[in-house]
Amino acid sequence: MKSTAAAPVVYIEEIASRVGQEVTVRGWIYNKRSSGKLQFLMVRDGTGTLQVVVFQKNVSAPLFQAVDRLTQESSVVVTGRVRADERAPGGYEMDASDVQILQVAEPYPITPKDHGVPFLMEHRHLWLRSSRQRAILRIRHEIIKACRDFYDSRGFTLVDTPIFTPAACEGTTTLFETRYFDDTAYLTQSGQLYNEATAAAFGKSYCFGPTFRAEKSKTRRHLMEFWMVEPEVSYAELDDIMALAEEFISEIVQKVVVGRRTELATIERDVGRLENVRPPFPRLSYDEAIRLLQEKGLPIQWGDDFGGDEETQLSQQFDRPVMVHRYPSKLKAFYMQPDPQRPEVALCVDVLAPEGYGEIIGGGERIHGHDLLLNRIQEHKLPAEAFRWYLDLRKYGSVPHSGFGMGIERVVAWICGLEHVRETIAFPRMLYRIYP
Amino acid sequence: MKSTAAAPVVYIEEIASRVGQEVTVRGWIYNKRSSGKLQFLMVRDGTGTLQVVVFQKNVSAPLFQAVDRLTQESSVVVTGRVRADERAPGGYEMDASDVQILQVAEPYPITPKDHGVPFLMEHRHLWLRSSRQRAILRIRHEIIKACRDFYDSRGFTLVDTPIFTPAACEGTTTLFETRYFDDTAYLTQSGQLYNEATAAAFGKSYCFGPTFRAEKSKTRRHLMEFWMVEPEVSYAELDDIMALAEEFISEIVQKVVVGRRTELATIERDVGRLENVRPPFPRLSYDEAIRLLQEKGLPIQWGDDFGGDEETQLSQQFDRPVMVHRYPSKLKAFYMQPDPQRPEVALCVDVLAPEGYGEIIGGGERIHGHDLLLNRIQEHKLPAEAFRWYLDLRKYGSVPHSGFGMGIERVVAWICGLEHVRETIAFPRMLYRIYP
Repeated sequence: MKSTAAAPVVYIEEIASRVGQEVTVRGWIYNKRSSGKLQFLMVRDGTGTLQVVVFQKNVSAPLFQAVDRLTQESSVVVTGRVRADERAPGGYEMDASDVQILQVAEPYPITPKDHGVPFLMEHRHLWLRSSRQRAILRIRHEIIKACRDFYDSRGFTLVDTPIFTPAACEGTTTLFETRYFDDTAYLTQSGQLYNEATAAAFGKSYCFGPTFRAEKSKTRRHLMEFWMVEPEVSYAELDDIMALAEEFISEIVQKVVVGRRTELATIERDVGRLENVRPPFPRLSYDEAIRLLQEKGLPIQWGDDFGGDEETQLSQQFDRPVMVHRYPSKLKAFYMQPDPQRPEVALCVDVLAPEGYGEIIGGGERIHGHDLLLNRIQEHKLPAEAFRWYLDLRKYGSVPHSGFGMGIERVVAWICGLEHVRETIAFPRMLYRIYP
Repeated sequence: MKSTAAAPVVYIEEIASRVGQEVTVRGWIYNKRSSGKLQFLMVRDGTGTLQVVVFQKNVSAPLFQAVDRLTQESSVVVTGRVRADERAPGGYEMDASDVQILQVAEPYPITPKDHGVPFLMEHRHLWLRSSRQRAILRIRHEIIKACRDFYDSRGFTLVDTPIFTPAACEGTTTLFETRYFDDTAYLTQSGQLYNEATAAAFGKSYCFGPTFRAEKSKTRRHLMEFWMVEPEVSYAELDDIMALAEEFISEIVQKVVVGRRTELATIERDVGRLENVRPPFPRLSYDEAIRLLQEKGLPIQWGDDFGGDEETQLSQQFDRPVMVHRYPSKLKAFYMQPDPQRPEVALCVDVLAPEGYGEIIGGGERIHGHDLLLNRIQEHKLPAEAFRWYLDLRKYGSVPHSGFGMGIERVVAWICGLEHVRETIAFPRMLYRIYP
């Protein structure tokens, strides 16, 4: 949309380079105050917020009155000269010479008063316009970009794995299913099995896409639909992917700290805690973790799985993520390679974020022997026919290989210091919510 | 995995920087020939292929015999000195001092003889190891990266839109549905409606993820599951997004031409045709397109939609993509803004790739008036309740806005010059195929 004036249209993020020039900004009223002959409009355009000053003497009387009636989120195209002014929020303001009003918004449902979460979720499509939600989603964008850049710059090939799958990767109880013409398809829970095929083709590969779990649980760490990044490396063993995970997480966090300092300030995140996140991360065997939890007084025995409480307790012991390795095989998925020194434990690792954020990465070495894998598939009563292609990978040049999956929403929650994953994605899908 | 020797482990892509050094490479036998006291192993590791020369005198007799028995795709860790040699494929070779055999592969099902497509699709997990398939998927990776870099570098915010949606974006006949606890969810066909909410929050946004269409059709241009990148820009009108589309496609194509020259050569793509793809693209109104098709003798009338034949015919008239704009509104989705000059046509655009590849982009200006949009929702018999949030966007600061969607698989097919989209993604989902 052109303005009616001849000034160039600019985004607020570039306003500092426009001082002294007449420009047009297109956006929405975020806030407004008036003092008689002056009106101060806080205009947001999605890239920033700019104070626009409308002097009564600079515009027609009807326009000045119309500006006075502007409501929150009304859409406006403002033209005027940009001025540096220390008193203005952000350091710049615009002296308006013209205000074009596109729509005076109806009374905006989200006001500065405290709304309950259900109300905000019901209005998620509007709630996204708030400074806080925008800051979180920009940090999410930075995290996703950092993930991709990490693998792209290290010679990994991105290979998108399918959403529709003929079989469950980790059991069938938490699968969403759909009619696929005359067949049934399940929505993927992980791209890992397919990554194992692509890692044999490309050496190093990764996938990054949405995954699904129909878990009938309402916790602050679960969504039904969440995004995962999953690297897989042929010839890599447990130590190799622990080193990769450590380097990966550190790079992401430091990129956010540098690139999204403004947004971290907006949401009042303690950046000092993030700056700690550098290698080496503490490594703890499952055995050591059990002893530590028992010392803390938790009623846990060797062989028990960790729940939210145990993860929180463990992760609070360290100022950076902790890598817990070699869980009992029976707690883990069927494809985990047993430790040759101690076959009752698996060559696997979970990475727990600090500050009580729990598991953000799970991975390990995959079984590469054909017969052992076939036994495990049978023991787990999985449909062998659906895994025929997966077993093939163990017939034609099988090699040790390892990888992991990292859940993006949990990482966003941790890096942003959020209480609940529901704010980490634009339109969260929860137990009782698929709207909007 | 470490080698038994002490040499550093390297990837073949970095072999040129290792001339004169002893290194270890880990991979698979791609090909093999012997000449008495010499064996030539073509070893691939996913990043490249290296000729490894095993001299009988350099290894033990049992090892030399074992090397002689290696089959295609057997997994090996080879150690030796790197040598520049013009006669070697790629210009370098390795004099092996050690060969560690991990697995002698069973007879590999994919041989140089001509296999039918059903057989190759059934073995897609192995077919991906071929030079041609790897080249295509690396080009796909480059295209995806170029798409993201394009928007990231232009101030767009990536906002992932949901896969589970409560309603259909463009009609209900081609939706996959799933039980969502006590409710029904539909798999997304496009993130556009959600993009319109996020463009109002961020000014410029994009989504990039898998989308789904249950079309009971078997054509060379359709998959059930395909990836789309969809930008949306507040305050943008039809001309603005036509310019964006033109710049976008040109940048992607030129990045592939520069960055993936080797892979384009592997698949024998005519790069000259891609080098033409630069602005400006020809712009053709629907009216003009109809006249052109009638001149070519096609039995088409004003008001008819274009099928594959018409798209192919049109796109063959130009040496670069052609932008066809202002189709009759009744051919397009309910949310298309009518042309104020001529309300029977919509402010929309389809971009058709050259060389007969058909539509790769569809988009336009969205209705921004509340009442008109509500009328259209009712006319199309869509469930108004599910669109309540979408109508909200027209109440709180509605602005003209536009965007488009680009299907990745069709772009990969075009850039690679493929006959069928089934080779553009690692694990294509087609009418009768969800395996592997």
